[in-house]
Amino acid sequence: MSSNQKSAGVIVIGNEILSGRTQDLNISYIGKKLEGLGIILSEVTIIPDIENDIINKVKVYSEKYDYVFTTGGIGPTHDDITTASIAKAFNVNLIRNKDAVNRMGKHYQSGKLSEARLKMADVPAGAILINNLVSGAPAFKINNVFVLAGVPEIMRSMFDSLIEHLVSGPPILTASVCTNLTESKLASGLSEIQGKCQDVSIGSYPFFKQGNLGVNIVLRSTDKDLLLNQYKLTEELVNHLKGKILETHIPD
Amino acid sequence: MSSNQKSAGVIVIGNEILSGRTQDLNISYIGKKLEGLGIILSEVTIIPDIENDIINKVKVYSEKYDYVFTTGGIGPTHDDITTASIAKAFNVNLIRNKDAVNRMGKHYQSGKLSEARLKMADVPAGAILINNLVSGAPAFKINNVFVLAGVPEIMRSMFDSLIEHLVSGPPILTASVCTNLTESKLASGLSEIQGKCQDVSIGSYPFFKQGNLGVNIVLRSTDKDLLLNQYKLTEELVNHLKGKILETHIPD
Repeated sequence: MSSNQKSAGVIVIGNEILSGRTQDLNISYIGKKLEGLGIILSEVTIIPDIENDIINKVKVYSEKYDYVFTTGGIGPTHDDITTASIAKAFNVNLIRNKDAVNRMGKHYQSGKLSEARLKMADVPAGAILINNLVSGAPAFKINNVFVLAGVPEIMRSMFDSLIEHLVSGPPILTASVCTNLTESKLASGLSEIQGKCQDVSIGSYPFFKQGNLGVNIVLRSTDKDLLLNQYKLTEELVNHLKGKILETHIPD
Repeated sequence: MSSNQKSAGVIVIGNEILSGRTQDLNISYIGKKLEGLGIILSEVTIIPDIENDIINKVKVYSEKYDYVFTTGGIGPTHDDITTASIAKAFNVNLIRNKDAVNRMGKHYQSGKLSEARLKMADVPAGAILINNLVSGAPAFKINNVFVLAGVPEIMRSMFDSLIEHLVSGPPILTASVCTNLTESKLASGLSEIQGKCQDVSIGSYPFFKQGNLGVNIVLRSTDKDLLLNQYKLTEELVNHLKGKILETHIPD
């Protein structure tokens, strides 16, 4: 959108997401947070817990995007291979991080910091730790890659802790008009409005709600005046087509 | 898992998923269906509505996987650029498909098949149509790529219609043990069980439920006897560690 906005990619690591057994909730959380920070989420990929897949994808994303976030596979069990794979991607050793051990020592009662748990204190050499207020074992950052847990409650705590490491851009503002009109009725009018201003992107998202079809028209821009102007034209279009306006949203 | 299983990739096309505004529900649906069909979902990517991104990703996935499924961007509005981008990816023209026009003619009342709607009858030359029982405008298949809607209700109808085009493999069977034990307690025992048999993959998925931590241990294999054997060992491990078994699942 704007040349001073950073780009980001997310790598979701987990067989359980690909099998459909677990519904991912992290992508939408990260997407919303990045939008608020004015950082463009350019791509997400979901890959299995396979070492080579993780290594290759991390290398590609780390080159391609300003920031990379991985979720999943950093726990203590045999199928948690993310941390070791990322060390290999950057060609560094895994080391037991003393600061991580200390943080976990504070979280767990005396005697409960087992060897299995301590595996989570092994991070790639040179990594910077990211706080985990929920379950103790920290996330970490190596180069431009942030390595986070997959459990949503833990991932969110880690993400909120890492924001200080990100350079924000102008926030992406959104406005929306939700109507009972169909996309086909709106198509030519919306296309005309989009044609008037390329600095406001207009997305049209059809939905079913309790059996009724409708469309949510979402406008996005970093420029508030342009956004509100295009929003006004969109509202007029819906009124002109005799559609019901079910809901609207404009930035504060 | 097995050499006679086909592979698949999913390309989710949509700014609204990347911005976090819309929670994707299609990946888990497709993942579950493919698992039942014995087809391995190897990778998912989520990309924006940008022509070059779509073209490049479709080319790569079409080469790499036996089957590719795209969702989103096939409606009648200006931001629906998937169909045209896919025609470009395969270097063929968009043509108005008479059969698609006929199908839509049956769905819409006389006079309601507007030019905006007819845009959805324009498909890449050589494409095979896929039924859409929900909203009339068909999906299509070109080479090994199935091009589907983004609205979940419509996508599901399309997916169920396209299954006849897929070659199934031996179904992937799953068993699971859900316990209140922590991953760190289970780690070494699970690792030992996994070591006994590589034909059953064991995944360990921690969760929070009403403030309580627990782990769902999921075993997957195409071989029922091996699966049940590993399942039994897993149950014994949980009992041995004095964990509660909250829930179990074995194949019928």
